[in-house]
Amino acid sequence: MSRLPKIHARRELDPGHVFRIEQLDLEFSNGVKRTYERLESKGLGAVIVVPMRDDETVLLVREYACGLNHYETGLVKGRLEAGESILEAAQRELREEAGVAARDLVELTELSLAPGYMSHVTHVVLARDLYDSPLEGDEPEPLDVEPWPIANLRELTARPDCTEGRTIAALYIARDYLLNEKENA
Amino acid sequence: MSRLPKIHARRELDPGHVFRIEQLDLEFSNGVKRTYERLESKGLGAVIVVPMRDDETVLLVREYACGLNHYETGLVKGRLEAGESILEAAQRELREEAGVAARDLVELTELSLAPGYMSHVTHVVLARDLYDSPLEGDEPEPLDVEPWPIANLRELTARPDCTEGRTIAALYIARDYLLNEKENA
Repeated sequence: MSRLPKIHARRELDPGHVFRIEQLDLEFSNGVKRTYERLESKGLGAVIVVPMRDDETVLLVREYACGLNHYETGLVKGRLEAGESILEAAQRELREEAGVAARDLVELTELSLAPGYMSHVTHVVLARDLYDSPLEGDEPEPLDVEPWPIANLRELTARPDCTEGRTIAALYIARDYLLNEKENA
Repeated sequence: MSRLPKIHARRELDPGHVFRIEQLDLEFSNGVKRTYERLESKGLGAVIVVPMRDDETVLLVREYACGLNHYETGLVKGRLEAGESILEAAQRELREEAGVAARDLVELTELSLAPGYMSHVTHVVLARDLYDSPLEGDEPEPLDVEPWPIANLRELTARPDCTEGRTIAALYIARDYLLNEKENA
């Protein structure tokens, strides 16, 4: 169990170096006019990976989550780097965060974060046929890997350290995909 | 089917009036030092509501999502207003967006948005025993309400207009809660 990092200093920054806020003057089809704001991330999008160690077991990682200042248990995820495809980014993040690579990677769907005011899109990738292949990433500490029975998402989502909407959505979507595949095999 | 709003003007804003970015100097328990940034929303948190018309049917709403510039089908949701409890906010949003109120409201869990860099928390509320009770809100146009069989989330999440991680997570969590309740009845 990791101890929380010490916070040595806090300071406030100009948000403009990370985010762009766009204000739009809109006219709805009924003639009503409104001004809306949306946040555009300066990134290339993100991937979230569901790595299956076997047909029943997903690998979760435990990582310090600065926004909530706690250790969050969830799926491997990260941002796309310049020039990378979605599956390449998924493979790299899988190696960096969980120490494994996958011979079988498939994109299942795309998830939005907060579509009302963010343009952010996350690609959900199912990873199977895993083998050890650790890659040094930019993580400040190695992540603990926790195998979890994918049949038991009810108990997982009740845990206070498993809170992220995208992780939970991706786990259920992958489970439905695997069940459907099995039924049609 | 709603036509997309016309965009009459776009302009860039100073992000500081909506968001605060905090930079933290951290020292992990292994001694590694890193500087992380996190985004703090200036709001009071949010609610997302799963309204069950009957044991099998959830009510979805279709709303313009400015971040993706499309109509998104998802759950009733909104921000807490000053002085409101979580269940009061859920009831108000339900009346404003779906035109119904609930005699039975229960908070199921909390979801985070992007815990790595956002402090945002959304409370998931299950709403049952519904009755008509529309309330004028700040929506620019009335929202279409779409009843959907909660047993069939696989087909829903495959739709290009149902993308939001929190909505999908909340639907599956509510479905598991209802199934568990039935099994223990």
